[in-house]
Amino acid sequence: MPDPARLALNQITTNSWTLAQAIEGCARHGVRGISIWRDKLQEMGLAEARRAVRAQGLAVTGVCRGGMFTHADASGRKASRDDNARAVEEAHELGAQCLILVVGGLPGGSKDLASAREQVREGIAAMHEQARAAKVPLAIEPLHPMQAPDRACVNTLDQALDLCDALGPGVGVALDVYHVWWDPNLERAISRAGKERLLAYHICDWLVPTRDTAFDRGMMGDGVIDLPRIRGWMEAAGYDGMHEVEIFSAADWWKRDPDEVMRILKGRHLAVT
Amino acid sequence: MPDPARLALNQITTNSWTLAQAIEGCARHGVRGISIWRDKLQEMGLAEARRAVRAQGLAVTGVCRGGMFTHADASGRKASRDDNARAVEEAHELGAQCLILVVGGLPGGSKDLASAREQVREGIAAMHEQARAAKVPLAIEPLHPMQAPDRACVNTLDQALDLCDALGPGVGVALDVYHVWWDPNLERAISRAGKERLLAYHICDWLVPTRDTAFDRGMMGDGVIDLPRIRGWMEAAGYDGMHEVEIFSAADWWKRDPDEVMRILKGRHLAVT
Repeated sequence: MPDPARLALNQITTNSWTLAQAIEGCARHGVRGISIWRDKLQEMGLAEARRAVRAQGLAVTGVCRGGMFTHADASGRKASRDDNARAVEEAHELGAQCLILVVGGLPGGSKDLASAREQVREGIAAMHEQARAAKVPLAIEPLHPMQAPDRACVNTLDQALDLCDALGPGVGVALDVYHVWWDPNLERAISRAGKERLLAYHICDWLVPTRDTAFDRGMMGDGVIDLPRIRGWMEAAGYDGMHEVEIFSAADWWKRDPDEVMRILKGRHLAVT
Repeated sequence: MPDPARLALNQITTNSWTLAQAIEGCARHGVRGISIWRDKLQEMGLAEARRAVRAQGLAVTGVCRGGMFTHADASGRKASRDDNARAVEEAHELGAQCLILVVGGLPGGSKDLASAREQVREGIAAMHEQARAAKVPLAIEPLHPMQAPDRACVNTLDQALDLCDALGPGVGVALDVYHVWWDPNLERAISRAGKERLLAYHICDWLVPTRDTAFDRGMMGDGVIDLPRIRGWMEAAGYDGMHEVEIFSAADWWKRDPDEVMRILKGRHLAVT
């Protein structure tokens, strides 16, 4: 059974809450970590957000998100670099355990995956020094292959680890079960990653059928992912961080009362993950 | 530019046609190969279908489909073996270049991918001798990871090739660009497969957005797959077989006049693949 003290909320799961509400909600429900989205952070203000998470003693398990490195022109890449620099600052100010990188898909009109992937490597390299100086670990998140064209052209854990190998210390991975559960090489890749590079562990479930390629994730236990098995592989690799519940669910969980969602995810974390 | 003589029709693309109509349609449009679905074959009758494809001089590039090896109980597995034995016979009678294997997903209620994958290996092993004796190559088709739970738990070309390695001669792969285009290891995996194991090449396109995880494929040129690049990798590996257009498209192409679909796919094959 997982340790309830390891449960964290990715605030997208309670998408109708403001950041202030999500921080209060975590405290109210005894959830000890939160992953923060930058649009919500903007609304609340960085200083106030920092004050609130500290007041509640919450771990900031991640900041979502940096990345989006792939662009058709230089001005897009420049804007992305500026935004990533701000993301590193925000993650530093919040004392976040990592900055999540969703790397971007194919730039508009392009079919050149290899070139997009090279832009990703260049983009991470360009922010690497700032992030290391700020002690903000960069967490490359491989996304499901169905999201390759429009969200992230890094699509397996091994591919993310190849990037880590190329980039060196300070760059690791965020493992979200939704994106990688199907991978026949997953156990080996988690072992290959090792404790130092496993920067975050995100949980939810894969629904059958899946009605939307981005916004139809399930609550743990409602789908087909063998969550205890994957947690076992993470622990075997030395991971001792938090278990962050991240559910994009436009048609279901986002419409519910967030307090109900919190109660259910707490129960499911113990019961089925 | 691809050789127009290599164009083949997977009859699902003209789903509103009977098999007799599809065979006549190929002849009328100068398409020299057809891949046949067994439900349509059943309607037409095996002997009559064989007569018709021979009369038109069509290559039968594949029979769709055998497989579906994963079941929760022994009776399901037995039924699957019996059905696969019939599929081998049909492919033999039609002189098909291969029998396509869609291997099946997670059996009802299971979350055990490893066990499902072992059932797949056992299922192919069980039909292997009959298929070799009948000179019917078995083509394992890796399906997109989003179809892992309900259609096929073989999800990368490398995973399919690992199965081929374990099973020996007479077992190869069907490469459908829709399922594998995103794979960062695709070029190496095609090279690893080699000419002898590349039994079929299926083309279509990946639409952005994708509105359905099974039935929303695009016509070549309407999506983001770099088709000439993948064809180049196939040819570099020695593939000299046909280019089979397979489009599942409930909301678009299946609703159109099949003769219009044939005209368009012929043009797109030359122009963009």
